Amino acid sequence: MGEKIYFSYRMIHRTIRKLSEEIRDSRFTPDLMVAIGTGGFIPARIMKTFLGIPILTVGIRFYDKNNKLQSVPEKIQWIDGVEEKLKGKKILLVDEVDDTRTTLEYCLNELLKYSPEEIAVAVLHKKEKVKNGTIPEEIKRYYCGEILPDAWCCYPWDALDIDEHERIAGKAQV
Amino acid sequence: MGEKIYFSYRMIHRTIRKLSEEIRDSRFTPDLMVAIGTGGFIPARIMKTFLGIPILTVGIRFYDKNNKLQSVPEKIQWIDGVEEKLKGKKILLVDEVDDTRTTLEYCLNELLKYSPEEIAVAVLHKKEKVKNGTIPEEIKRYYCGEILPDAWCCYPWDALDIDEHERIAGKAQV
Repeated sequence: MGEKIYFSYRMIHRTIRKLSEEIRDSRFTPDLMVAIGTGGFIPARIMKTFLGIPILTVGIRFYDKNNKLQSVPEKIQWIDGVEEKLKGKKILLVDEVDDTRTTLEYCLNELLKYSPEEIAVAVLHKKEKVKNGTIPEEIKRYYCGEILPDAWCCYPWDALDIDEHERIAGKAQV
Repeated sequence: MGEKIYFSYRMIHRTIRKLSEEIRDSRFTPDLMVAIGTGGFIPARIMKTFLGIPILTVGIRFYDKNNKLQSVPEKIQWIDGVEEKLKGKKILLVDEVDDTRTTLEYCLNELLKYSPEEIAVAVLHKKEKVKNGTIPEEIKRYYCGEILPDAWCCYPWDALDIDEHERIAGKAQV
């Protein structure tokens, strides 16, 4: 997994627009998004421009303070009054990248407990690789902006030097 | 207020970097951010790259379903287990723009109830205008990325056509 792929903000904004149009065209009309933090925050906020629905957020981490991988993640933040907010609702769960799928599996199973009408998944990117996690069978809709090889994704929001980042991303762009 | 100011993603990323350095240089070491949704999501997520601290989010809206302005906002999302998460903590409250200051006043007063050690404010932009809201006197630190006239801010995440948006923002850029 030595390859790195650089994404400019503009590329991501365009991908999210396309993804939003695909969701709309599929006739799925979510009531709200749940953005998985912190990677899902920016994709979800851009998507709000196109879908016009509220965003709730959840934050989880699989690594403890000693940077040790846990089998069950810690909830940095969860949804307050979660039952009332999700029951009977059509939810679009939004994340940055479907990589190992562990985070998606955990969040989907947690959110399914609150009797939503439906949960669909929307990820900016999906990596083509063997997944550790599984999408529960209740999930019928899965949208992704772009399918990628198993490379290292360099997102603009993680850039220390944004001008250098966008220069590299621009060079790779068609 | 006819004037419009266009900001590119790159301009905002650079401003957030400068703002993060200013916070670090001031020796304020927040334990966590609280991002005010949905405008604060993108500034806070970029800031995390530079400050490396967790983000909690709150979402409020002052307009009801009939688009009528309420005196007390509706909480779209609040912090679960808020007391435990904020008590004794140094918090950086992050939003997009300090405009009328109503949202900031509301959120600061709400968060102060949970006995944090300190709350500081960080906004991407502050508009120079008469404010309806007041920063509570407990707040000693206020950081802003850029001071603007009372114009209409056009943020890239709100753009329907990002290429057109960035073109306009680029023309205005020095």
